Amino acid sequence: MQSTHLREHNLSTLLSTLASAEAPLSRAGLAKLTRLTKPTVSKLVEELVAAGLVAEGTPVSAGAGRPMVPLSPARGTLLAIGLEVAADHISCLGIDLTGEAISQRTEYLRVTAASAEEAIQHCAALVGRVRADAGSLPTVGVVAAVPGRIAPDDGRVLSAPNLDWTEVPLVGRLLAHPELAGLPVRAQNDNRLSVLTEIDRRPGESFIYLRGSTGVGGAVVLDGQLLDGAHGWAGEFGHTVVVPDGALCRCGRRGCLEAYVSYHSLRERAGLGDDVRIEDLVDALSRHGDRAEVIGMIGRSLGLAVANALNVLDLATVVLSGYLAPIADELEPVIRGTVEAHALAVEAGPVRIERSDGLADPALRGAARAALQPVFSAPGEWIAREPSTPAR
Amino acid sequence: MQSTHLREHNLSTLLSTLASAEAPLSRAGLAKLTRLTKPTVSKLVEELVAAGLVAEGTPVSAGAGRPMVPLSPARGTLLAIGLEVAADHISCLGIDLTGEAISQRTEYLRVTAASAEEAIQHCAALVGRVRADAGSLPTVGVVAAVPGRIAPDDGRVLSAPNLDWTEVPLVGRLLAHPELAGLPVRAQNDNRLSVLTEIDRRPGESFIYLRGSTGVGGAVVLDGQLLDGAHGWAGEFGHTVVVPDGALCRCGRRGCLEAYVSYHSLRERAGLGDDVRIEDLVDALSRHGDRAEVIGMIGRSLGLAVANALNVLDLATVVLSGYLAPIADELEPVIRGTVEAHALAVEAGPVRIERSDGLADPALRGAARAALQPVFSAPGEWIAREPSTPAR
Repeated sequence: MQSTHLREHNLSTLLSTLASAEAPLSRAGLAKLTRLTKPTVSKLVEELVAAGLVAEGTPVSAGAGRPMVPLSPARGTLLAIGLEVAADHISCLGIDLTGEAISQRTEYLRVTAASAEEAIQHCAALVGRVRADAGSLPTVGVVAAVPGRIAPDDGRVLSAPNLDWTEVPLVGRLLAHPELAGLPVRAQNDNRLSVLTEIDRRPGESFIYLRGSTGVGGAVVLDGQLLDGAHGWAGEFGHTVVVPDGALCRCGRRGCLEAYVSYHSLRERAGLGDDVRIEDLVDALSRHGDRAEVIGMIGRSLGLAVANALNVLDLATVVLSGYLAPIADELEPVIRGTVEAHALAVEAGPVRIERSDGLADPALRGAARAALQPVFSAPGEWIAREPSTPAR
Repeated sequence: MQSTHLREHNLSTLLSTLASAEAPLSRAGLAKLTRLTKPTVSKLVEELVAAGLVAEGTPVSAGAGRPMVPLSPARGTLLAIGLEVAADHISCLGIDLTGEAISQRTEYLRVTAASAEEAIQHCAALVGRVRADAGSLPTVGVVAAVPGRIAPDDGRVLSAPNLDWTEVPLVGRLLAHPELAGLPVRAQNDNRLSVLTEIDRRPGESFIYLRGSTGVGGAVVLDGQLLDGAHGWAGEFGHTVVVPDGALCRCGRRGCLEAYVSYHSLRERAGLGDDVRIEDLVDALSRHGDRAEVIGMIGRSLGLAVANALNVLDLATVVLSGYLAPIADELEPVIRGTVEAHALAVEAGPVRIERSDGLADPALRGAARAALQPVFSAPGEWIAREPSTPAR
């Protein structure tokens, strides 16, 4: 039993080391980095290669001795699927072990105008199309990103006010579709998935991550680790109060940050239709009013929520993502003004307000990456399956 | 070098195990709990006993075999000193290795009416008296609890608005006094020290700790660990905003929780003099107004700050301490109402609002305990000194 655990642990270490390396590694290089013996590395690499998890490149000769075989995670041998349910679209992304996209499908759809069951039908159909795009590749699993609170036990969406969803048994319903039958399926908060790329970019850092999308939310990262909290819901800045007894939020509460700076609230306040896309929101608002006023309102509301969170957490970095990233330079001075007026941390030095990497669809990519995770944490189970051959 | 580290580590483990045990332990019991060999335990215990850190009790015979010698941390062999600077008093407490008080001295003094230098003179004098009370006991060090932000590098008090202190070089000035010369001296935020006892009472738990005293502040505890943040300032609930552009706080900001529910703000708003003691505050306020109104205002303000923090941290327990502890039962329904109106965590189940252990002077006791910590983390240095004999 102990040796099975050890073997699994070593396989996981080898695969993860290859995935995080900037360039392919030789068996000797792997042994050095993982501190495993060369015979152990050779034996386990052989298994990983046979299972289609690791690819051997063209041997490189250093002149003397045996040529070095470069190793890297295999491309196109398996499929991990991310789903994102947003107010105005549903997207599905399939990636392989290297994180490379194999297929992405998006359907623009007003989710609040449909029933949850219809939206779930669309999700299942998109998964089916992405799996078809990927040919015969074996699927690791599916993770769905949802702008709401997920029950930790069974993947029910307890509340996703920006989708008008309450108590939607998302995971259970997805599993009932033939496109997903038998697959591991999980649901997770969209903001907590979207922060994963940012954590990779900032190893070991502590920061507040704020993302504007369907809702406004985020995550708290302490020393490179995502803070979970009691129910996996930490980082819900969107429902901290910025105006006591203020505007009614879609969640039913009053004065939430989201009642002022979410897609829905900004759009409705400006009298814009629901055909505006999230990424075009601020530009559309500016055409209907004074851009400085729009930025000012968003920035002051965010600044207050951020200042309150900084006082509780004592962090020195704030990262803006989603629709906030492209306007981060405009927002920065407004947020900074409010933060400096209220956050004690500025007594020790400036608070950094930065933009995220700006890559598109961070929640969708985070969901696909989360779906891939079981292969890295327990490659042994994957090795025990039928080996697959590269699709390309 | 390695073996010195190992020895220090083992000494620390043994002493800490004895301190956290509910009853005295035998050498065999220590070996079992620490997983050290019996010869190692015997050798190190001998050193700890010789240095006056561990006491041997009366041997107990189990009938057969060698009688068991009960071991526990030694009483009255050393002195660790805590100081507390509050708005209306300065206290000094000396404890021994068991945490038992050897001497406590308090001076009631309006710190804001005096200069910081005068207050520091009083601190030094109190330390001198406590050391005199303790006779010839060797002093481990001094930790001062201050209601403010301490510079992580040199123990300057950057700001302590409720004392009217800005940039006070507390540690440096204390060290200049003959009563403290040559001692290790540190300063720390009062609320972060006061939570230490609560952490012991709730091993491994996660909770928000809110303390009403000179100011209103607290701490965040995650899985039994105090959250530090970037500068050791996490848990400053008192300066989260509960009324945007609201009342002016002593810190110079507007709308802080502390502008509504601190000792100063409540007293001044009710027109009470500064001769009211912190622990008598709510009773005094009730004599000048409607008690339900006073409790309602305090509870709603706290509730909003707590709800915002719960949304960011996703915790399920709130502990009330300081002047909030004796009125916790009255505050609970008011805080609960506001928390339930704003905290997402209630979607998963009730948030527990509890009172702290209610022991007097938690910050002072926490400070003394923090002063003791070096003996537990590096007993070897203490062993290398001259051994001391029990004072009683």
